[in-house]
Amino acid sequence: MDYEKEAIKKHLEWKGKIGTQVLVPLETVQDLSLAYTPGVSAPCLEIQKDIRKSFDYTRRGNTVAVITDGTAVLGLGDIGPEAGMPVMEGKCAIFKKFADVDAFPLCLKTKEVDEIVNIVHAISGSFGGINLEDISAPRCLEILEKLQNVCNIPVFHDDQWGTAIVTGSALINALKIVNKKIESVEIVINGAGAAGIAIGRFLLDLGAKHITMVDRFGILANGLPEMTNPAHIEIAKVTNLSGKTGNLADAMKGSDVFIGVSVGNIVSKEMVKSMREKAIVLALANPDPEISRKDALAAGAAVVGTGRSDDLNQVNNALIFPGIFRGALDARARSFNSEMYHAACYAVANLINSTELNPDYIIPSPFDKRVASAVAKATYEAAKKSGNCW
Amino acid sequence: MDYEKEAIKKHLEWKGKIGTQVLVPLETVQDLSLAYTPGVSAPCLEIQKDIRKSFDYTRRGNTVAVITDGTAVLGLGDIGPEAGMPVMEGKCAIFKKFADVDAFPLCLKTKEVDEIVNIVHAISGSFGGINLEDISAPRCLEILEKLQNVCNIPVFHDDQWGTAIVTGSALINALKIVNKKIESVEIVINGAGAAGIAIGRFLLDLGAKHITMVDRFGILANGLPEMTNPAHIEIAKVTNLSGKTGNLADAMKGSDVFIGVSVGNIVSKEMVKSMREKAIVLALANPDPEISRKDALAAGAAVVGTGRSDDLNQVNNALIFPGIFRGALDARARSFNSEMYHAACYAVANLINSTELNPDYIIPSPFDKRVASAVAKATYEAAKKSGNCW
Repeated sequence: MDYEKEAIKKHLEWKGKIGTQVLVPLETVQDLSLAYTPGVSAPCLEIQKDIRKSFDYTRRGNTVAVITDGTAVLGLGDIGPEAGMPVMEGKCAIFKKFADVDAFPLCLKTKEVDEIVNIVHAISGSFGGINLEDISAPRCLEILEKLQNVCNIPVFHDDQWGTAIVTGSALINALKIVNKKIESVEIVINGAGAAGIAIGRFLLDLGAKHITMVDRFGILANGLPEMTNPAHIEIAKVTNLSGKTGNLADAMKGSDVFIGVSVGNIVSKEMVKSMREKAIVLALANPDPEISRKDALAAGAAVVGTGRSDDLNQVNNALIFPGIFRGALDARARSFNSEMYHAACYAVANLINSTELNPDYIIPSPFDKRVASAVAKATYEAAKKSGNCW
Repeated sequence: MDYEKEAIKKHLEWKGKIGTQVLVPLETVQDLSLAYTPGVSAPCLEIQKDIRKSFDYTRRGNTVAVITDGTAVLGLGDIGPEAGMPVMEGKCAIFKKFADVDAFPLCLKTKEVDEIVNIVHAISGSFGGINLEDISAPRCLEILEKLQNVCNIPVFHDDQWGTAIVTGSALINALKIVNKKIESVEIVINGAGAAGIAIGRFLLDLGAKHITMVDRFGILANGLPEMTNPAHIEIAKVTNLSGKTGNLADAMKGSDVFIGVSVGNIVSKEMVKSMREKAIVLALANPDPEISRKDALAAGAAVVGTGRSDDLNQVNNALIFPGIFRGALDARARSFNSEMYHAACYAVANLINSTELNPDYIIPSPFDKRVASAVAKATYEAAKKSGNCW
């Protein structure tokens, strides 16, 4: 199918992928008197007395803002806020369909970090959570961190943490197949942007000890003079502890795991062949992976995952974001924390039991109906346990 | 019915009055590939090339933001953004139910005029219109004016212009009954807040020549030294041209029309008796009118309207805002203008024909299904005619 042509046709027909719906009766004067004036003043005054009641009397506790500035939409780059809307609407539709979360898209006409932070903070009282989307690096790192400090609701940047968590799920299951331990494997992450850095941090958090980050200029190493990006400087302090230098091919030699969140077709069969036995290749660049599934398998990789919906083992953020927000909302979490990320990650991995697990099935399909509820339940319990709720 | 108790109960049960709904199929990998990646990039790129296409490929052209800072919610005053949400959700529900407009509530955690303007402008690319709500005066006047200057979509403050337009509709029909002309009647407007000033400006625009505005300190007059509010100073330049002074009772003596947007029970029967024959009394304070319908009629008023849903002749903003936005959205208007306001006003008035019109029926019920479509059609045509569209 010619997806471009068909998508244009469908979008013209749809004129929007999400809308609002009325959840209460509005047929009579009495209905209006309860849902609106004069009755509505009573719940207003209750919330004024105790702001936590905003979760009881309004939709806040089921509502997430999906926010972008349009600077890093899909692989299209900075296309502006209005042009980012079809993606944001799609995301909101997935939120509703997969986890009954009422998500609303807001595309901002500003690229200033502090202005974005102020705007999102200013609207945060209307939502139970904030999902940042397609904001360019390194601004997205700063925006996420600042928002997590000022907002009293969970703030998530899917391109960072959704990717990191689902990559963690895929890796956990791939390691079971090759019978290696996360503590001992050599992991190469290519692409030290927002997603790559989040993956690096999350895998460290899951117990990985040997991570090498690679970007266009080569291997990230502590104190490397050509490294100027503050996020690179930070992550280089806790990765590549043996002080490797060189390019991607050098990094991959003798490694156990390759994770790509970079660009298509930059990994050759030879590079995969240079990895250790029972190599794991998660080539997540979209739409073209760093190396195709077919080529990676031909080069001897034991387990391969990509970001493509037409491949086996699709490593897809949609496994995480609907359920993690569902769980956070249900728990009335005030923030996301490491416990919640771990819980979501293992919930996805553990959906595949040891008899089902095989190199072609390390991660559930985004249409597996168990996923969102399993992630939601695990996240909910972690949030409640870590005592971080309204 | 004890509306307070029942509204609390219902709001707890509802947990929100509006939610989102998915408007497209999301059942298969192919559905996702069209509504989301990779297909979605095609409409994104089309919008990037021509921003007007945001109205074709997204829900923007059917979506309105309902925005408050929580400073003047109903008669409750400054109760804060979270506590304002039940009202905003109710408003959004009415938008959807009465005119199929997808309205989304945003309650802002800031009271700074310029910050509110910046926030609303920053999100305006995601919407086809902006409805401001329950923002305290005189800030709301400045916010509305600034937003109308910077936004390229229609911006409406319902408390100002919704009230003004529907009051105009009621007055037009009341004048037909008493056989007086708007140009010649003496009109007293009590309450020179945002609503009162908008009513004054709108009635001037409809042809009124003799308007006296009254506020707590008495009659507004050009050059009055105790008048410090800039909005009062402005409106005093174009009203009370004969230079009256005194209090509300003085203003009402010998007047033809009383319009109250102030507080309950401040007009006595004697004050109504001091008006000219065939007096019109629109006592719109909520929940208690300036004088009850019963007392105003007993004092000799020919036509009486109030804001109460349990009275005849309810002068209700809900007659205007759903339809005026429906029409503006359908026309893809870039702003509201005087032509659109006039069209909406006369559309409501003209729904009652000369045989139906009587002192107990000067304005249609908010449940009259003809209203929203009549207002929408008139507004649409006025917008198209005044050449003010995307």
